[in-house]
Amino acid sequence: MNLPEEIEVAAKQSYPVYLGAALEELGDYLQSLPDKIQHILVISHKKVSDLYLERLVKGLEDYRVDLLTVPEGEEEKSLERLSRLTTAALDCGADRKTLVIALGGGVIGDLAGFFASAFMRGIRFLQVPTTLLAQVDSSIGGKVAVNHPAGKNILGAFYPPLAVWTDFSTLNSLPWNEVENGLAESIKHALIDDEDLFAFFETQADSIRQRDPAIWREMVTRSTSIKIRIVSQDEREQGIRRLLNLGHTFGHALETEMNYRGVTHGQGVSIGIVAASYLANAKGSLTLTEVERIKQLLQRYDLPTSIQKQDPQTLLRRMQTDKKNQGGRKILVLPQGIGQAVVSEDCTDEEILAAWHKIIVENN
Amino acid sequence: MNLPEEIEVAAKQSYPVYLGAALEELGDYLQSLPDKIQHILVISHKKVSDLYLERLVKGLEDYRVDLLTVPEGEEEKSLERLSRLTTAALDCGADRKTLVIALGGGVIGDLAGFFASAFMRGIRFLQVPTTLLAQVDSSIGGKVAVNHPAGKNILGAFYPPLAVWTDFSTLNSLPWNEVENGLAESIKHALIDDEDLFAFFETQADSIRQRDPAIWREMVTRSTSIKIRIVSQDEREQGIRRLLNLGHTFGHALETEMNYRGVTHGQGVSIGIVAASYLANAKGSLTLTEVERIKQLLQRYDLPTSIQKQDPQTLLRRMQTDKKNQGGRKILVLPQGIGQAVVSEDCTDEEILAAWHKIIVENN
Repeated sequence: MNLPEEIEVAAKQSYPVYLGAALEELGDYLQSLPDKIQHILVISHKKVSDLYLERLVKGLEDYRVDLLTVPEGEEEKSLERLSRLTTAALDCGADRKTLVIALGGGVIGDLAGFFASAFMRGIRFLQVPTTLLAQVDSSIGGKVAVNHPAGKNILGAFYPPLAVWTDFSTLNSLPWNEVENGLAESIKHALIDDEDLFAFFETQADSIRQRDPAIWREMVTRSTSIKIRIVSQDEREQGIRRLLNLGHTFGHALETEMNYRGVTHGQGVSIGIVAASYLANAKGSLTLTEVERIKQLLQRYDLPTSIQKQDPQTLLRRMQTDKKNQGGRKILVLPQGIGQAVVSEDCTDEEILAAWHKIIVENN
Repeated sequence: MNLPEEIEVAAKQSYPVYLGAALEELGDYLQSLPDKIQHILVISHKKVSDLYLERLVKGLEDYRVDLLTVPEGEEEKSLERLSRLTTAALDCGADRKTLVIALGGGVIGDLAGFFASAFMRGIRFLQVPTTLLAQVDSSIGGKVAVNHPAGKNILGAFYPPLAVWTDFSTLNSLPWNEVENGLAESIKHALIDDEDLFAFFETQADSIRQRDPAIWREMVTRSTSIKIRIVSQDEREQGIRRLLNLGHTFGHALETEMNYRGVTHGQGVSIGIVAASYLANAKGSLTLTEVERIKQLLQRYDLPTSIQKQDPQTLLRRMQTDKKNQGGRKILVLPQGIGQAVVSEDCTDEEILAAWHKIIVENN
């Protein structure tokens, strides 16, 4: 087997990310591991497993493989679903030697990963991300979680996978709203760390929208590499990794308030990036021209930069249970020009409210 | 502050166990830590916090302290309770800087520990064990978990505490059935690792039953030290730590089958030790005289060595979801004489059934 490009993620337990891997060759890779696997539990959505399980299983003839499917939707990242997965896993004989494969996007990775982290106090876990969001972002960095009625990703773990197996071909058939989710995170990566990539998104917008394979390959590889570089420096989110939360404190508040309906994660992040940009402008770290440049780029990819009919006070309260908060203070990430960002601990509620007002459109 | 006796547990993240600590001095200890704590969440039972919170809080005047109480009972180690704790913790402003203190016995330690491991992907956690079981066994070794309808401790983590703060004075008022839970584990420690301690339990039975303080101190210290030595060699239960499961595969099956009613954990372990002893006798690693010696010692402490009206086939099926099983085979721990034990992977279902038969009394 010719191994695809491998980038090592430095972590307490470091792991490889294989970019440009083939689903069919996963079996060869597993055979090459020192500690033998007997049983594989693939966790996926029905739609995703219908598309890819056959190709994946081609490499896994030597293993006993069970498939557990989960309905689609962010609301499936729940303790209730974790409990059902546990029952189903035990029913098909899963034990400490079972390998969990997350075949899907961010929801599957988070849910299957938290399941693997907790089942019998932790079994092995492999990420096979099939969406742009999962490939450039959520499959990297070891964060897994489920939601709680009071907030997103409130219960979870830092649980590094055995490896991340990234097959670019799964992106070909991705619906555009799923592409948007990944683009929002990719643009965020560019905004916090790589002005060149930001410019690439500006100049290559047409090719990216037309899914030019070479351009996509470059986009995914560059964006993934930013995420790997950042989490390798700071696995536990004590320092630089916090920058990856740009747009997410605003975005999570919006998603939670709307009960994950009517706004996708990528749309939430996009609006959140714009809110954070206005806040950065108010704090003096971003010019209005730069705010406009960010908005224009997001709009080039049909990502929203405003939202209708929301109450700023309610959204502010939603931000109070954010995991990044410390000692009652809200911790926010603000762009500092294009290609850099800072963590700010001194934003007042008034300043945050003003940022919400900037992106809420009254619908008269 | 004079620090109490400190034994270091070697682990990925090693931590100190303070034997003979005073509840009132915990605050001084926390002050001495490099990373400052702002908010403390004590998780306990009402009965236990009524007894000890006042003494604990004496040392904690400098901190914002909240108390969350949980009803008593093994059935509280559930995902449902985890979800409620999460809501309550957020309501009192818990964040990533919060320290969770588990004040209580094994159920509190397991539940609060799993909560701390998962809340915002892991916050700091300190064990203050107030029962004999928790002091000699469950507070040491970093295992935390909740139960699932399909089996005990099915969802959990290896999550080392910041420290274990053990005040012997909390044992004085412990009800005898709680003492029994700890004695079953202590006798198990002696049986797998320390023939001298086994003999100590035989010769000092009267003093132990009368709670002679010096004898108890010696018993707790020696028993705790065995647990520390074993888990320090094998944090993740790949090798020697598996010996600590002596009696537990049988015991858990019984506890699960009886829905945690009518049999305490200590009683389950006691009966399980006897079943494992009969199995060991059948496999040739224990004489019948030694089986009798073990039974007599357990009986000296009012621990049961048989059970009424159970169906061996049903109990055998219950053992199938045990976490120790691998590739469908049952992994059992068997005494090898007094003071040693071995992990056996080749016990047949017939041999296990025969052991169940030995300890089930028909009630006609």
